[in-house]
Amino acid sequence: MSETELHEEAAAPESQLDEDDRLKPEFVSAVLDAVDEGDDEAAHVLVAPLHPADIADLIELVPSERRADVVTAISDLIDGDVLAEMNDWVREALVDALEPHQVANLAAELDTDDAVAIIEDMDVEDQREVLRALDPDDRAAIEEALSYPEESAGRLMQRELIAVPEHWTVGDVLDYLRGNDELTTDFWEIFVVDPSHKPIGTCELSWILRTPRAIAISDVMKREQTLIPIDMDQEEVALRFQKYALISAAVVDLSGRLVGMITVDDIVHIISQEAGEDILRLSGAGEGDINEPVLLTVRTRLTWLFVNLGTAMLAASVVGLFQGEIAKFALLAVLMPIVSGMGGNAGTQTLAVVVRAIATNQLTESNTLRMIWRELRIAAANGATLGLAIGAGTMLVYGIPWLAVVIAAAMVINNVIAGLSGVLIPVTLDRLRVDPAVSSAVFVTMMTDVMGFFSFLGLATLVGLGG
Amino acid sequence: MSETELHEEAAAPESQLDEDDRLKPEFVSAVLDAVDEGDDEAAHVLVAPLHPADIADLIELVPSERRADVVTAISDLIDGDVLAEMNDWVREALVDALEPHQVANLAAELDTDDAVAIIEDMDVEDQREVLRALDPDDRAAIEEALSYPEESAGRLMQRELIAVPEHWTVGDVLDYLRGNDELTTDFWEIFVVDPSHKPIGTCELSWILRTPRAIAISDVMKREQTLIPIDMDQEEVALRFQKYALISAAVVDLSGRLVGMITVDDIVHIISQEAGEDILRLSGAGEGDINEPVLLTVRTRLTWLFVNLGTAMLAASVVGLFQGEIAKFALLAVLMPIVSGMGGNAGTQTLAVVVRAIATNQLTESNTLRMIWRELRIAAANGATLGLAIGAGTMLVYGIPWLAVVIAAAMVINNVIAGLSGVLIPVTLDRLRVDPAVSSAVFVTMMTDVMGFFSFLGLATLVGLGG
Repeated sequence: MSETELHEEAAAPESQLDEDDRLKPEFVSAVLDAVDEGDDEAAHVLVAPLHPADIADLIELVPSERRADVVTAISDLIDGDVLAEMNDWVREALVDALEPHQVANLAAELDTDDAVAIIEDMDVEDQREVLRALDPDDRAAIEEALSYPEESAGRLMQRELIAVPEHWTVGDVLDYLRGNDELTTDFWEIFVVDPSHKPIGTCELSWILRTPRAIAISDVMKREQTLIPIDMDQEEVALRFQKYALISAAVVDLSGRLVGMITVDDIVHIISQEAGEDILRLSGAGEGDINEPVLLTVRTRLTWLFVNLGTAMLAASVVGLFQGEIAKFALLAVLMPIVSGMGGNAGTQTLAVVVRAIATNQLTESNTLRMIWRELRIAAANGATLGLAIGAGTMLVYGIPWLAVVIAAAMVINNVIAGLSGVLIPVTLDRLRVDPAVSSAVFVTMMTDVMGFFSFLGLATLVGLGG
Repeated sequence: MSETELHEEAAAPESQLDEDDRLKPEFVSAVLDAVDEGDDEAAHVLVAPLHPADIADLIELVPSERRADVVTAISDLIDGDVLAEMNDWVREALVDALEPHQVANLAAELDTDDAVAIIEDMDVEDQREVLRALDPDDRAAIEEALSYPEESAGRLMQRELIAVPEHWTVGDVLDYLRGNDELTTDFWEIFVVDPSHKPIGTCELSWILRTPRAIAISDVMKREQTLIPIDMDQEEVALRFQKYALISAAVVDLSGRLVGMITVDDIVHIISQEAGEDILRLSGAGEGDINEPVLLTVRTRLTWLFVNLGTAMLAASVVGLFQGEIAKFALLAVLMPIVSGMGGNAGTQTLAVVVRAIATNQLTESNTLRMIWRELRIAAANGATLGLAIGAGTMLVYGIPWLAVVIAAAMVINNVIAGLSGVLIPVTLDRLRVDPAVSSAVFVTMMTDVMGFFSFLGLATLVGLGG
């Protein structure tokens, strides 16, 4: 979060939001109408009471070709806070349209982490120009942040924090905070450091408030702390915040010195994003952002679809082995998609559970074997039930005993294969340090398609159904 | 979070955790070995330095039939904090094994929200016994919390908070906090209330710390605040925390009086859970918790599989219409799964993107039409590309021009159907207030299967391929 003035931040008036905190379509239309009529004043009156997060939403909800007009009409309301809340793609397009000195003015208002988020996606040349326009301290801070890998703690952290020496009393801390206007106002804990600036303890503000002035800060602080290495990936930072219920945490460089702070409000977006990403990755939808340029989306999805085309052709070639049988007994072609499809459904269920369990650190080496055993039992139970149902149904409709037996048996086999590959494939990929959410689904579907066709058509051939 | 003593909470020693903050399997085995040998002392030495969240993980990682032994061996380390961090299913089983007075002792240590989490899953009779064993204040607080619906703000909130009248100065607040030992130590903001106990402003602790004693608290507080109605669903609470980057928020009852507080550390779990739930719901894996009893999991997944069996039989019946053609030209049966499968993949991609966009409030009435148009263009582009590829491939392998044309055309048709149903189905369900993550996949797969078979086999029949 940025350092807004204490009284400035306005909550969105309830009337412009629906019951899910989304801007009402009437409101979005009203703003667009005002902009259309060139009535910037009216647009301003409408938008001014909104929270920065809602102004960001407004810009996202407006059609992309209209965004520049809207932003121009209410330009003085589009401050750094609004940009920080905005979708990456939408922000990037807006920032591209601004002059470097305008970007510099916006960035200067913000904490390092938010300024970096705005600047990091620009072209190198534009970046350089923005940095030149910043004052030396801000520039140094942002340049350093940009030197860390993307999505690392170094990019996420803000350098604005409160660090005090351990020999201070609570009174010293209060006097220091009250006497230095340039200090950040957004902090939830203060860090106690040794002379070499290494953190030795953390102190929640409530503890300071509840302690008399004369007590030493080192008697109030908690010595055990969760430190974040500066090169840690943001996904791990998010898991650590979640696991230990942190509000803020100290970021340390390789020599263990305190260099920044990450606060939970910057992490909640990442927690939600990382948790939501798996569904998009499993389905091969890439980032899946609805604001992504269409051409990029087409490219991402096509890549995945072509990989799947390969496995679909492999599965088709299995069917090809049994063309003769199908020609003689076309009912096999009618029923075979049921076996492969149900295997695919069962495999996807297991896969979703396993991918989530891996992502949330619930599935580790200690319980992998147990998980495999668990899924095997579930698969056997489901397969047996479905097999019985489809076998009975087939007997009833077609009255061919061997056909009923074959489809029931194939259903059991394919369900067990679905369950096993639904666990084994993501677990193996995770061990190989490949993201299981990205690549598991192709392999699992391949297994259930190929084995679904093979078990059903193969068994049918064995018992002479196609002869 | 509970009110732990300031210095008590120990961070997990790095050596027992791997680089992803998971307990190492060797460590889990070492604890199990100690318990096996009846050496409770050794187990205690191993586990004592762990953070409560890691002790909770340890219990989860141990096989379920061994959990009681481990808990007995280190019973004095299993405090309320550990239980609060534990998976619901694992905790429920443990709590069932405890005597009501033991549960009451654990609950008494905790803030209302954590105590409620432990008690809410018990049988009504056991609940009553635990409540009887609590002291009257705790009992009243917990009974009231239990009177609100599950997963509502009333269950999530803690009643322990700091509220002060608006005429106080910063100095009054400091004296009040220092002079009342029974006040909670875990708070990040204080609430300013009017004489009828309605919140009129919120004050971050950092603002208080930076302000001289003589200043009135009403000059420091922020008047605009995000209030949480007591009956709000936890998913909406989580979205609101995320959107407005809240650290804590006041919960108000129906008459607008301040009755509790929700802090972000209780919300991060919900944010992650809600964001991760969609993948499990889309795949029909229910809660997808790996600690869920196997029978319950089988039942949840079977329900979904039977629904899908219905749609698979519908798709099969479409194939059945073309049995005659397939018997004459079995190659149709070989190629038809490619068309339906690729449509399924494309539909799942769109579905995942749309379900996420709905869940994160990015897709609203204002941009639905644009989203449909966007997905239509993507589907047309992907369909055309895939159609060309598969058409060319078919021509190359089989040398039958009409077959190549038919499969290419069917691929385009089915991709467009996939894209359209991938948007229209979840959007329609959302309008009807049905969770799109739960039920969309069945309909989308049904569309892509049925239309995939129908367009391919139908076109083939039209051009006389099966004749």
